[in-house]
Amino acid sequence: MRIYDFEGLPNPARVRIALAEKGITDKVEFITINVPNGEHRKPEFLTKNPTAAIPVLELDDGTTISECTAITEYLDHMFDGISLTGKTPKQRAIIHMMQRRGERNLLDAAVDYFHHATPGLGPELETYQNREWGEKQRERALSGMRYFNTVLSAQPYIAGDSFSMADITVFAGLAFADFAKIDIPLDLKNLRVWREHIAKRPSIAG
Amino acid sequence: MRIYDFEGLPNPARVRIALAEKGITDKVEFITINVPNGEHRKPEFLTKNPTAAIPVLELDDGTTISECTAITEYLDHMFDGISLTGKTPKQRAIIHMMQRRGERNLLDAAVDYFHHATPGLGPELETYQNREWGEKQRERALSGMRYFNTVLSAQPYIAGDSFSMADITVFAGLAFADFAKIDIPLDLKNLRVWREHIAKRPSIAG
Repeated sequence: MRIYDFEGLPNPARVRIALAEKGITDKVEFITINVPNGEHRKPEFLTKNPTAAIPVLELDDGTTISECTAITEYLDHMFDGISLTGKTPKQRAIIHMMQRRGERNLLDAAVDYFHHATPGLGPELETYQNREWGEKQRERALSGMRYFNTVLSAQPYIAGDSFSMADITVFAGLAFADFAKIDIPLDLKNLRVWREHIAKRPSIAG
Repeated sequence: MRIYDFEGLPNPARVRIALAEKGITDKVEFITINVPNGEHRKPEFLTKNPTAAIPVLELDDGTTISECTAITEYLDHMFDGISLTGKTPKQRAIIHMMQRRGERNLLDAAVDYFHHATPGLGPELETYQNREWGEKQRERALSGMRYFNTVLSAQPYIAGDSFSMADITVFAGLAFADFAKIDIPLDLKNLRVWREHIAKRPSIAG
Protein backbone atom coordinates (compact mmCIF):
# COMPACT_ATOMS: atom_id res chain seq x y z
CA MET A 1 0.00 0.00 0.00
CA ARG A 2 1.04 3.58 -0.67
CA ILE A 3 -0.29 6.74 0.90
CA TYR A 4 0.04 10.09 -0.83
CA ASP A 5 -0.04 12.81 1.80
CA PHE A 6 1.75 15.74 3.40
CA GLU A 7 2.79 15.31 6.99
CA GLY A 8 1.32 17.74 9.49
CA LEU A 9 -1.98 18.44 7.74
CA PRO A 10 -5.08 17.29 9.63
CA ASN A 11 -6.52 14.66 7.27
CA PRO A 12 -3.14 12.95 6.73
CA ALA A 13 -2.76 12.95 10.52
CA ARG A 14 -6.07 11.12 10.90
CA VAL A 15 -4.97 8.27 8.65
CA ARG A 16 -1.50 8.11 10.21
CA ILE A 17 -3.08 7.76 13.67
CA ALA A 18 -5.43 5.05 12.35
CA LEU A 19 -2.45 3.16 10.89
CA ALA A 20 -0.57 3.41 14.20
CA GLU A 21 -3.63 2.25 16.15
CA LYS A 22 -3.85 -0.80 13.86
CA GLY A 23 -0.09 -1.35 14.14
CA ILE A 24 0.40 -1.34 10.38
CA THR A 25 2.35 1.87 9.72
CA ASP A 26 5.29 -0.20 8.42
CA LYS A 27 3.09 -1.77 5.74
CA VAL A 28 2.72 1.59 4.00
CA GLU A 29 5.00 3.54 1.69
CA PHE A 30 4.41 7.27 2.16
CA ILE A 31 4.75 9.57 -0.84
CA THR A 32 4.85 13.31 -0.20
CA ILE A 33 2.49 15.56 -2.15
CA ASN A 34 3.74 19.10 -1.64
CA VAL A 35 0.46 20.84 -0.86
CA PRO A 36 1.97 24.26 -0.01
CA ASN A 37 3.45 24.22 -3.54
CA GLY A 38 0.11 23.22 -5.09
CA GLU A 39 1.26 19.74 -6.15
CA HIS A 40 -2.17 18.31 -5.17
CA ARG A 41 -3.77 20.31 -8.01
CA LYS A 42 -1.38 19.12 -10.74
CA PRO A 43 -2.66 16.66 -13.40
CA GLU A 44 -0.47 13.81 -12.17
CA PHE A 45 -2.07 13.85 -8.73
CA LEU A 46 -5.58 14.50 -10.09
CA THR A 47 -5.44 11.08 -11.75
CA LYS A 48 -5.07 9.67 -8.22
CA ASN A 49 -7.83 11.85 -6.77
CA PRO A 50 -9.93 14.14 -8.97
CA THR A 51 -11.08 16.07 -5.89
CA ALA A 52 -7.42 17.08 -5.23
CA ALA A 53 -7.62 16.14 -1.55
CA ILE A 54 -5.03 14.24 0.46
CA PRO A 55 -4.51 11.65 1.80
CA VAL A 56 -5.01 9.04 -0.91
CA LEU A 57 -4.50 5.33 -0.27
CA GLU A 58 -3.29 3.39 -3.31
CA LEU A 59 -3.76 -0.36 -3.16
CA ASP A 60 -1.34 -2.78 -4.81
CA ASP A 61 -3.83 -3.31 -7.66
CA GLY A 62 -3.76 0.45 -8.41
CA THR A 63 -7.13 1.27 -6.86
CA THR A 64 -7.04 4.72 -5.26
CA ILE A 65 -9.15 5.59 -2.22
CA SER A 66 -9.64 9.10 -0.86
CA GLU A 67 -11.70 10.39 2.10
CA CYS A 68 -10.52 9.49 5.60
CA THR A 69 -13.66 7.54 6.46
CA ALA A 70 -13.27 5.37 3.36
CA ILE A 71 -9.57 4.76 4.00
CA THR A 72 -10.27 3.88 7.64
CA GLU A 73 -13.04 1.48 6.59
CA TYR A 74 -10.53 -0.29 4.35
CA LEU A 75 -7.79 -0.54 6.96
CA ASP A 76 -10.17 -1.57 9.73
CA HIS A 77 -11.74 -4.39 7.71
CA MET A 78 -8.48 -5.54 6.14
CA PHE A 79 -6.36 -5.80 9.29
CA ASP A 80 -6.84 -7.29 12.76
CA GLY A 81 -6.38 -5.41 16.01
CA ILE A 82 -8.39 -2.62 17.61
CA SER A 83 -11.72 -1.89 15.93
CA LEU A 84 -11.95 1.72 14.75
CA THR A 85 -15.32 1.50 12.96
CA GLY A 86 -17.29 -0.69 15.39
CA LYS A 87 -18.38 -4.30 15.39
CA THR A 88 -22.14 -4.36 16.00
CA PRO A 89 -24.64 -2.55 13.75
CA LYS A 90 -25.42 -0.11 16.58
CA GLN A 91 -21.74 0.64 17.29
CA ARG A 92 -21.10 1.16 13.58
CA ALA A 93 -24.03 3.55 13.32
CA ILE A 94 -23.01 5.63 16.33
CA ILE A 95 -19.36 5.79 15.20
CA HIS A 96 -20.32 6.89 11.68
CA MET A 97 -22.74 9.47 13.11
CA MET A 98 -20.08 10.94 15.39
CA GLN A 99 -17.51 10.78 12.59
CA ARG A 100 -19.73 13.01 10.45
CA ARG A 101 -20.39 15.37 13.33
CA GLY A 102 -16.67 15.58 14.06
CA GLU A 103 -16.01 16.44 10.43
CA ARG A 104 -18.85 18.81 9.70
CA ASN A 105 -19.05 20.62 13.03
CA LEU A 106 -15.41 20.78 14.00
CA LEU A 107 -12.64 19.74 11.60
CA ASP A 108 -14.19 20.90 8.31
CA ALA A 109 -15.48 24.04 10.03
CA ALA A 110 -12.00 24.92 11.32
CA VAL A 111 -10.45 24.15 7.92
CA ASP A 112 -13.04 26.29 6.13
CA TYR A 113 -12.45 29.14 8.57
CA PHE A 114 -8.72 28.92 7.80
CA HIS A 115 -9.22 28.93 4.02
CA HIS A 116 -11.86 31.67 3.93
CA ALA A 117 -11.31 34.05 6.84
CA THR A 118 -7.50 34.00 7.18
CA PRO A 119 -4.77 34.26 4.50
CA GLY A 120 -4.94 30.44 4.40
CA LEU A 121 -2.44 28.93 1.96
CA GLY A 122 -1.73 32.32 0.41
CA PRO A 123 -3.12 34.24 -2.58
CA GLU A 124 -1.93 31.80 -5.25
CA LEU A 125 -3.72 28.77 -3.80
CA GLU A 126 -6.71 30.50 -2.16
CA THR A 127 -8.44 31.34 -5.43
CA TYR A 128 -11.82 31.95 -3.77
CA GLN A 129 -12.32 33.35 -0.29
CA ASN A 130 -15.52 34.47 1.41
CA ARG A 131 -14.57 36.05 4.71
CA GLU A 132 -18.07 36.37 6.13
CA TRP A 133 -18.83 32.72 5.48
CA GLY A 134 -15.43 31.77 6.92
CA GLU A 135 -16.18 33.63 10.15
CA LYS A 136 -19.45 31.68 10.42
CA GLN A 137 -17.41 28.47 10.22
CA ARG A 138 -15.37 29.63 13.20
CA GLU A 139 -18.62 29.93 15.16
CA ARG A 140 -19.60 26.48 13.94
CA ALA A 141 -16.30 25.00 15.16
CA LEU A 142 -16.78 26.58 18.59
CA SER A 143 -20.32 25.25 18.71
CA GLY A 144 -18.96 21.82 17.79
CA MET A 145 -16.48 21.99 20.67
CA ARG A 146 -19.36 22.76 23.07
CA TYR A 147 -21.36 19.85 21.67
CA PHE A 148 -18.50 17.35 22.12
CA ASN A 149 -17.85 18.69 25.63
CA THR A 150 -21.45 17.77 26.46
CA VAL A 151 -21.08 14.35 24.83
CA LEU A 152 -18.01 13.69 26.97
CA SER A 153 -19.89 14.53 30.18
CA ALA A 154 -21.71 11.21 29.81
CA GLN A 155 -19.14 8.88 28.24
CA PRO A 156 -15.35 8.49 28.02
CA TYR A 157 -15.02 8.51 24.21
CA ILE A 158 -16.72 10.42 21.41
CA ALA A 159 -18.81 7.45 20.26
CA GLY A 160 -19.32 5.71 23.63
CA ASP A 161 -17.25 3.41 25.82
CA SER A 162 -14.49 2.64 23.30
CA PHE A 163 -11.95 4.57 21.27
CA SER A 164 -12.92 4.84 17.58
CA MET A 165 -12.22 6.78 14.40
CA ALA A 166 -14.54 9.50 15.71
CA ASP A 167 -12.02 10.23 18.50
CA ILE A 168 -9.30 10.57 15.89
CA THR A 169 -11.43 13.02 13.91
CA VAL A 170 -12.27 15.22 16.89
CA PHE A 171 -8.64 15.11 18.06
CA ALA A 172 -7.46 16.21 14.59
CA GLY A 173 -10.16 18.88 14.60
CA LEU A 174 -8.84 20.35 17.85
CA ALA A 175 -5.26 20.22 16.57
CA PHE A 176 -6.27 22.14 13.47
CA ALA A 177 -8.31 24.59 15.55
CA ASP A 178 -5.09 25.29 17.52
CA PHE A 179 -3.24 25.90 14.26
CA ALA A 180 -6.00 28.23 13.01
CA LYS A 181 -6.05 29.99 16.41
CA ILE A 182 -9.58 28.95 17.39
CA ASP A 183 -9.00 28.42 21.11
CA ILE A 184 -10.94 25.82 23.07
CA PRO A 185 -13.10 27.84 25.50
CA LEU A 186 -11.71 27.50 29.04
CA ASP A 187 -14.96 26.16 30.48
CA LEU A 188 -14.99 23.05 28.23
CA LYS A 189 -13.31 20.87 30.85
CA ASN A 190 -14.53 17.49 29.63
CA LEU A 191 -13.13 18.19 26.19
CA ARG A 192 -9.78 19.32 27.62
CA VAL A 193 -9.45 16.26 29.89
CA TRP A 194 -10.42 13.92 27.04
CA ARG A 195 -7.87 15.59 24.77
CA GLU A 196 -5.03 15.16 27.28
CA HIS A 197 -6.01 11.51 27.69
CA ILE A 198 -6.12 10.85 23.93
CA ALA A 199 -2.78 12.65 23.39
CA LYS A 200 -1.09 9.99 25.55
CA ARG A 201 -2.05 7.11 23.26
CA PRO A 202 1.05 5.57 21.65
CA SER A 203 -0.45 6.23 18.20
CA ILE A 204 -0.18 9.96 18.94
CA ALA A 205 2.52 10.35 21.62
CA GLY A 206 4.79 8.01 19.61
CA MET B 1 -37.74 1.22 14.93
CA ARG B 2 -39.02 4.73 14.38
CA ILE B 3 -37.90 7.27 11.82
CA TYR B 4 -38.47 10.98 12.34
CA ASP B 5 -38.55 12.67 8.96
CA PHE B 6 -40.53 14.76 6.50
CA GLU B 7 -41.49 13.09 3.26
CA GLY B 8 -40.14 14.65 0.09
CA LEU B 9 -36.93 16.12 1.46
CA PRO B 10 -33.73 14.62 0.03
CA ASN B 11 -32.15 13.03 3.11
CA PRO B 12 -35.40 11.39 4.24
CA ALA B 13 -35.75 10.09 0.67
CA ARG B 14 -32.31 8.47 0.87
CA VAL B 15 -33.24 6.46 3.95
CA ARG B 16 -36.67 5.56 2.57
CA ILE B 17 -35.03 4.19 -0.58
CA ALA B 18 -32.52 2.24 1.53
CA LEU B 19 -35.38 0.74 3.57
CA ALA B 20 -37.22 -0.25 0.40
CA GLU B 21 -34.06 -1.78 -1.11
CA LYS B 22 -33.66 -3.87 2.06
CA GLY B 23 -37.39 -4.75 2.01
CA ILE B 24 -37.93 -3.51 5.58
CA THR B 25 -40.10 -0.42 5.16
CA ASP B 26 -42.89 -2.14 7.08
CA LYS B 27 -40.64 -2.57 10.13
CA VAL B 28 -40.50 1.20 10.65
CA GLU B 29 -42.96 3.63 12.21
CA PHE B 30 -42.62 7.04 10.51
CA ILE B 31 -43.16 10.17 12.58
CA THR B 32 -43.48 13.47 10.74
CA ILE B 33 -41.32 16.39 11.80
CA ASN B 34 -42.80 19.46 10.15
CA VAL B 35 -39.63 21.06 8.79
CA PRO B 36 -41.37 23.90 6.87
CA ASN B 37 -42.89 24.94 10.23
CA GLY B 38 -39.50 24.73 12.00
CA GLU B 39 -40.42 21.73 14.17
CA HIS B 40 -36.90 20.31 13.68
CA ARG B 41 -35.47 23.25 15.66
CA LYS B 42 -37.80 22.86 18.68
CA PRO B 43 -36.39 21.53 21.99
CA GLU B 44 -38.36 18.28 21.80
CA PHE B 45 -36.71 17.29 18.52
CA LEU B 46 -33.28 18.58 19.54
CA THR B 47 -33.22 15.91 22.26
CA LYS B 48 -33.43 13.38 19.39
CA ASN B 49 -30.81 15.15 17.28
CA PRO B 50 -28.91 18.18 18.57
CA THR B 51 -27.85 19.06 15.00
CA ALA B 52 -31.56 19.52 14.09
CA ALA B 53 -31.27 17.42 10.93
CA ILE B 54 -33.67 14.80 9.69
CA PRO B 55 -34.02 11.88 9.30
CA VAL B 56 -33.36 10.37 12.71
CA LEU B 57 -33.60 6.62 13.35
CA GLU B 58 -34.72 5.73 16.88
CA LEU B 59 -34.01 2.18 17.98
CA ASP B 60 -36.27 0.29 20.35
CA ASP B 61 -33.78 0.92 23.20
CA GLY B 62 -34.12 4.69 22.67
CA THR B 63 -30.79 5.19 20.87
CA THR B 64 -31.11 7.88 18.23
CA ILE B 65 -29.01 7.84 15.05
CA SER B 66 -28.74 10.72 12.60
CA GLU B 67 -26.75 11.10 9.36
CA CYS B 68 -27.82 8.99 6.35
CA THR B 69 -24.54 7.09 6.16
CA ALA B 70 -24.82 6.06 9.80
CA ILE B 71 -28.46 5.02 9.45
CA THR B 72 -27.67 3.04 6.30
CA GLU B 73 -24.75 1.31 8.05
CA TYR B 74 -27.15 0.22 10.79
CA LEU B 75 -29.85 -1.06 8.44
CA ASP B 76 -27.37 -2.79 6.15
CA HIS B 77 -25.63 -4.67 8.97
CA MET B 78 -28.83 -5.46 10.87
CA PHE B 79 -30.89 -6.90 8.02
CA ASP B 80 -30.27 -9.40 5.22
CA GLY B 81 -30.80 -8.76 1.54
CA ILE B 82 -28.97 -6.52 -0.92
CA SER B 83 -25.72 -5.05 0.38
CA LEU B 84 -25.76 -1.24 0.29
CA THR B 85 -22.39 -0.62 2.01
CA GLY B 86 -20.26 -3.36 0.42
CA LYS B 87 -18.92 -6.69 1.61
CA THR B 88 -15.17 -6.67 1.01
CA PRO B 89 -12.82 -4.05 2.50
CA LYS B 90 -12.18 -2.65 -0.98
CA GLN B 91 -15.89 -2.44 -1.87
CA ARG B 92 -16.61 -0.77 1.48
CA ALA B 93 -13.85 1.77 0.90
CA ILE B 94 -14.97 2.67 -2.62
CA ILE B 95 -18.64 2.95 -1.58
CA HIS B 96 -17.79 5.21 1.37
CA MET B 97 -15.54 7.33 -0.85
CA MET B 98 -18.27 7.78 -3.46
CA GLN B 99 -20.86 8.38 -0.75
CA ARG B 100 -18.82 11.35 0.51
CA ARG B 101 -18.28 12.65 -3.01
CA GLY B 102 -22.00 12.35 -3.71
CA GLU B 103 -22.77 14.32 -0.57
CA ARG B 104 -20.10 16.97 -0.70
CA ASN B 105 -19.98 17.60 -4.43
CA LEU B 106 -23.63 17.17 -5.37
CA LEU B 107 -26.35 16.80 -2.73
CA ASP B 108 -24.93 19.09 -0.03
CA ALA B 109 -23.82 21.56 -2.71
CA ALA B 110 -27.35 21.73 -4.17
CA VAL B 111 -28.88 22.02 -0.68
CA ASP B 112 -26.46 24.81 0.26
CA TYR B 113 -27.22 26.64 -2.98
CA PHE B 114 -30.93 26.43 -2.15
CA HIS B 115 -30.48 27.74 1.41
CA HIS B 116 -28.03 30.51 0.56
CA ALA B 117 -28.69 31.75 -2.96
CA THR B 118 -32.50 31.34 -3.24
CA PRO B 119 -35.27 32.29 -0.76
CA GLY B 120 -34.85 28.74 0.60
CA LEU B 121 -37.28 27.95 3.43
CA GLY B 122 -38.23 31.61 3.78
CA PRO B 123 -37.01 34.50 5.94
CA GLU B 124 -38.05 33.03 9.29
CA LEU B 125 -36.05 29.81 8.90
CA GLU B 126 -33.17 31.10 6.76
CA THR B 127 -31.52 33.09 9.54
CA TYR B 128 -28.18 33.35 7.72
CA GLN B 129 -27.73 33.53 3.98
CA ASN B 130 -24.60 34.23 1.96
CA ARG B 131 -25.61 34.57 -1.67
CA GLU B 132 -22.12 34.63 -3.14
CA TRP B 133 -21.13 31.46 -1.32
CA GLY B 134 -24.43 29.86 -2.33
CA GLU B 135 -23.76 30.59 -6.00
CA LYS B 136 -20.37 28.89 -5.64
CA GLN B 137 -22.18 25.79 -4.39
CA ARG B 138 -24.28 25.76 -7.54
CA GLU B 139 -21.02 25.62 -9.53
CA ARG B 140 -19.83 22.84 -7.25
CA ALA B 141 -23.01 20.82 -7.87
CA LEU B 142 -22.59 21.20 -11.64
CA SER B 143 -18.97 20.14 -11.35
CA GLY B 144 -20.12 17.13 -9.31
CA MET B 145 -22.54 16.17 -12.07
CA ARG B 146 -19.70 16.31 -14.62
CA TYR B 147 -17.53 14.16 -12.36
CA PHE B 148 -20.20 11.47 -11.93
CA ASN B 149 -20.90 11.52 -15.67
CA THR B 150 -17.23 10.63 -16.19
CA VAL B 151 -17.38 7.91 -13.52
CA LEU B 152 -20.40 6.38 -15.29
CA SER B 153 -18.53 6.24 -18.60
CA ALA B 154 -16.50 3.35 -17.19
CA GLN B 155 -18.93 1.50 -14.89
CA PRO B 156 -22.69 0.96 -14.51
CA TYR B 157 -23.05 2.22 -10.94
CA ILE B 158 -21.52 5.07 -8.93
CA ALA B 159 -19.24 2.79 -6.90
CA GLY B 160 -18.57 0.07 -9.49
CA ASP B 161 -20.46 -2.96 -10.77
CA SER B 162 -23.19 -3.04 -8.12
CA PHE B 163 -25.88 -0.73 -6.81
CA SER B 164 -24.96 0.82 -3.43
CA MET B 165 -25.83 3.64 -1.06
CA ALA B 166 -23.70 5.93 -3.22
CA ASP B 167 -26.22 5.52 -6.07
CA ILE B 168 -29.00 6.52 -3.69
CA THR B 169 -27.06 9.63 -2.67
CA VAL B 170 -26.34 10.76 -6.22
CA PHE B 171 -29.94 10.02 -7.24
CA ALA B 172 -31.23 12.13 -4.32
CA GLY B 173 -28.72 14.83 -5.24
CA LEU B 174 -30.10 15.05 -8.79
CA ALA B 175 -33.68 15.10 -7.48
CA PHE B 176 -32.83 18.00 -5.21
CA ALA B 177 -30.95 19.75 -8.02
CA ASP B 178 -34.18 19.55 -10.07
CA PHE B 179 -36.11 21.07 -7.18
CA ALA B 180 -33.53 23.86 -6.80
CA LYS B 181 -33.56 24.40 -10.59
CA ILE B 182 -29.96 23.33 -11.20
CA ASP B 183 -30.44 21.57 -14.53
CA ILE B 184 -28.31 18.60 -15.54
CA PRO B 185 -26.27 19.85 -18.53
CA LEU B 186 -27.58 18.27 -21.72
CA ASP B 187 -24.25 16.75 -22.68
CA LEU B 188 -24.02 14.56 -19.53
CA LYS B 189 -25.51 11.54 -21.26
CA ASN B 190 -24.08 8.83 -19.00
CA LEU B 191 -25.58 10.54 -15.97
CA ARG B 192 -28.98 10.89 -17.65
CA VAL B 193 -29.08 7.26 -18.78
CA TRP B 194 -27.99 6.05 -15.33
CA ARG B 195 -30.68 8.19 -13.70
CA GLU B 196 -33.44 6.75 -15.91
CA HIS B 197 -32.21 3.26 -15.09
CA ILE B 198 -32.11 3.90 -11.33
CA ALA B 199 -35.55 5.54 -11.37
CA LYS B 200 -37.03 2.21 -12.51
CA ARG B 201 -35.91 0.32 -9.40
CA PRO B 202 -38.92 -0.81 -7.34
CA SER B 203 -37.49 1.06 -4.32
CA ILE B 204 -38.03 4.30 -6.25
CA ALA B 205 -40.69 3.59 -8.89
CA GLY B 206 -42.82 1.91 -6.19
